[in-house]
Amino acid sequence: MAVLNKSCVHVYTGNGKGKTTAALGLVLRASGAGLKVSIQQFIKSGNYSEIKALRKISNVDLAQCGRKSFIKGKPSEADSECAKRGFEKAKDDIFSEKYDLVVLDEINVAMKLGLVNTREVAAIIKDRPKSVEIILTGRDCPAMIKEIADLVTEMREMRHPYRRGIKARRGIEY
Amino acid sequence: MAVLNKSCVHVYTGNGKGKTTAALGLVLRASGAGLKVSIQQFIKSGNYSEIKALRKISNVDLAQCGRKSFIKGKPSEADSECAKRGFEKAKDDIFSEKYDLVVLDEINVAMKLGLVNTREVAAIIKDRPKSVEIILTGRDCPAMIKEIADLVTEMREMRHPYRRGIKARRGIEY
Repeated sequence: MAVLNKSCVHVYTGNGKGKTTAALGLVLRASGAGLKVSIQQFIKSGNYSEIKALRKISNVDLAQCGRKSFIKGKPSEADSECAKRGFEKAKDDIFSEKYDLVVLDEINVAMKLGLVNTREVAAIIKDRPKSVEIILTGRDCPAMIKEIADLVTEMREMRHPYRRGIKARRGIEY
Repeated sequence: MAVLNKSCVHVYTGNGKGKTTAALGLVLRASGAGLKVSIQQFIKSGNYSEIKALRKISNVDLAQCGRKSFIKGKPSEADSECAKRGFEKAKDDIFSEKYDLVVLDEINVAMKLGLVNTREVAAIIKDRPKSVEIILTGRDCPAMIKEIADLVTEMREMRHPYRRGIKARRGIEY
């Protein structure tokens, strides 16, 4: 669609809350402006509350390439294959020029775990059609990616002693 | 509705990008889970792209109490009245128990500018019905509020030399 004539690369990283939700908020905004969005979720998979809501808004295509079980320790061969398939799909979406915004959710974690090659991600960012805005989220964003991004936000968790032991709640954390 | 039996207070602050969008992403998630949401936007007003998209998703009521013109320098009497009206409405929403999540967007800036009384905000947070989750966004969150919040995320803008001079774009920045 090529609505944006200048595009940026955003990174949302750090240990604080708000990385994926910041990307989702941008998706909402982009959708409201009539931009076409592709979201590829790495690492995680499931019918989260936000997925249900995203299905109701227009111009948003979503795919997940994580497995149901969360990766603990060393990723398996199956984890690696899932991530590779997801990455190929995301690459196709970026180069198709069908989308104005492509969100690579949790790809920073996929790079950190070696499921996706950091140099390859960097090459795609550099070679992408210049109308395509890209958002990368997840902890531990590699330095190579931060260096070529236009906007890097680190979400810092400011701990404090009054934090209470509340578990993850449907509609808020997932 | 009282769906959440334990609620939290989140603060998204700092000079980085992603504060309002993180709140909007949470609104999307909450809506997908069937939670009822009220958003009160302070300081700013306008038919932003995200507002258009929010109108399409269910369970979300939105009000704005900023004026069209952005506050430059000292706020006027009219700015102050707008903020006060918005704050009264937000308070009513919190105590009505009709909402599971109340977002006070840019209220940190309103407190910093003296448009909303910080002690009063702190009192409302403490006295709120315990089923109501509250999100406060904006730069310069007062220490008094951060101390009573359960979750404080500081969005830090990590500058780097390759930043290009790109102006605000519809669908991405607003």
